[in-house]
Amino acid sequence: MFDSVTIVGVGLIGGSFSLSLKERGLVKNVIGVGNTASGINKALELGLIDETLPLEEAVKKSDLIYVAIPVDVTVPVMRQIMDCMTEKQIVADAGSTKQALCESLADHPLRRRFVASHPMWGTEYSGPEAAVRGAFGGRACVICEKEKTDPDAVETMENIYKSLGMHMVYMDADSHDMHAAYISHISHITSFALANTVLEKEKEDSAIFELAGGGFESTVRLAKSNPAMWGPIFKQNREHVLDVLNEHIAQLRKFKSCLEKENYAYLQELMENANKIRRILK
Amino acid sequence: MFDSVTIVGVGLIGGSFSLSLKERGLVKNVIGVGNTASGINKALELGLIDETLPLEEAVKKSDLIYVAIPVDVTVPVMRQIMDCMTEKQIVADAGSTKQALCESLADHPLRRRFVASHPMWGTEYSGPEAAVRGAFGGRACVICEKEKTDPDAVETMENIYKSLGMHMVYMDADSHDMHAAYISHISHITSFALANTVLEKEKEDSAIFELAGGGFESTVRLAKSNPAMWGPIFKQNREHVLDVLNEHIAQLRKFKSCLEKENYAYLQELMENANKIRRILK
Repeated sequence: MFDSVTIVGVGLIGGSFSLSLKERGLVKNVIGVGNTASGINKALELGLIDETLPLEEAVKKSDLIYVAIPVDVTVPVMRQIMDCMTEKQIVADAGSTKQALCESLADHPLRRRFVASHPMWGTEYSGPEAAVRGAFGGRACVICEKEKTDPDAVETMENIYKSLGMHMVYMDADSHDMHAAYISHISHITSFALANTVLEKEKEDSAIFELAGGGFESTVRLAKSNPAMWGPIFKQNREHVLDVLNEHIAQLRKFKSCLEKENYAYLQELMENANKIRRILK
Repeated sequence: MFDSVTIVGVGLIGGSFSLSLKERGLVKNVIGVGNTASGINKALELGLIDETLPLEEAVKKSDLIYVAIPVDVTVPVMRQIMDCMTEKQIVADAGSTKQALCESLADHPLRRRFVASHPMWGTEYSGPEAAVRGAFGGRACVICEKEKTDPDAVETMENIYKSLGMHMVYMDADSHDMHAAYISHISHITSFALANTVLEKEKEDSAIFELAGGGFESTVRLAKSNPAMWGPIFKQNREHVLDVLNEHIAQLRKFKSCLEKENYAYLQELMENANKIRRILK
């Protein structure tokens, strides 16, 4: 049980994390730190946090600091936090990229108090209103560079994530970013692009969405995601995302070529291969 | 209330349609027609149908014949059905393409007893086991070439679909196929291609799926769809599907170009444009 935890960025992830800690009785007091008064007031109103303080004051009063802000601002803010921390405290992040952050903190005197983590959970919504109870359960949580963090700090975060129903996966930061590009980042790009494809058509034909069914909604829902969060992810993970995007365009071109050449046997093969995803998805 | 309805193809759509008719007390007896004994036995066992008969016998005994089989076989089977029907009966299909079928039946003496319909509902599963109660509700149902069908036949099908909770949309067959390419067919191709993208990577790295979260599942779930159903749809709707696929690849290339050139302002713009999908999706 923590006396005090600071959540930096009380949105979808930070807010849901706070709710989970409170639900499980893991914390007495949650301090919220945010960059807009409206966001913080909303978080107070929704009971996601108990009080708000400026960053440095909040850090000084907390056993654990949890950072869940866009990955570009995580880099300088994490350094600012660690500059005013002591060896008795723990800081962890929830960012969707790990390499840039780990690199930037490699030489920090308190590097060993930092847990680089990525709970693989989210929705297409953002802000304090998007926070939900019961988040994170059943998903993987990646911890990177475990060997560079003090065992007590790793164990503390593992225990929290496990109590939320997550299972732990360990890898180096670059492997994480590559995997995340395949399993998450590309899905967002295809959804954004699919939304733009259909919105482009809708300019001439406003009736088009009247027909949208469950399949369309499912493939395009991530296109509602927050650009302020995803721009920095794509930027930091540029090389891996480009690799996967090139592969994905090549796969789409195979379908295109089948249709152009009326090679329906190969089209069938491509779909049958894709069906192998059944053994992975429930 | 129909005395007897024949369902040709008792899979996801035909089976769910039968369950809906039965639930609402719209039919006394459902005759199933199928091309495999195992499928028909499963449909009997699951209570989707009450009996089975060879196609012509079933047609002769029925007030309404509902055809829900792959779109390539729909063309010859529909003609076979209409060749042994009378002017007192109604036949309707549920196919995902309309142009090829409507064209092939244009000169049939009983064309006016045929209702070209497409209930815009489905899941990624197939076969009798995939049939579910409460299907179709809240979705659009397209009726094509309404003017070529007798008003009493159109009204009968409208009343059924409305009683299932669907709202009716009317358009010509080519418009339907174009809309379906945008709102359904392309989603399946992107899912198939995304599955192949990630499965390709998995050959080198079997751990990749351990991390898969909700976003991945959502964008890739249609890749579980049945190739025997989708191959003929893509073939019949080849030109529209190619148009949309070309547009989609062009949209993906914009994301690629932003990343290659590190043009993050335009990347932001592309995502903000995609966010407009919010006003369409719930």
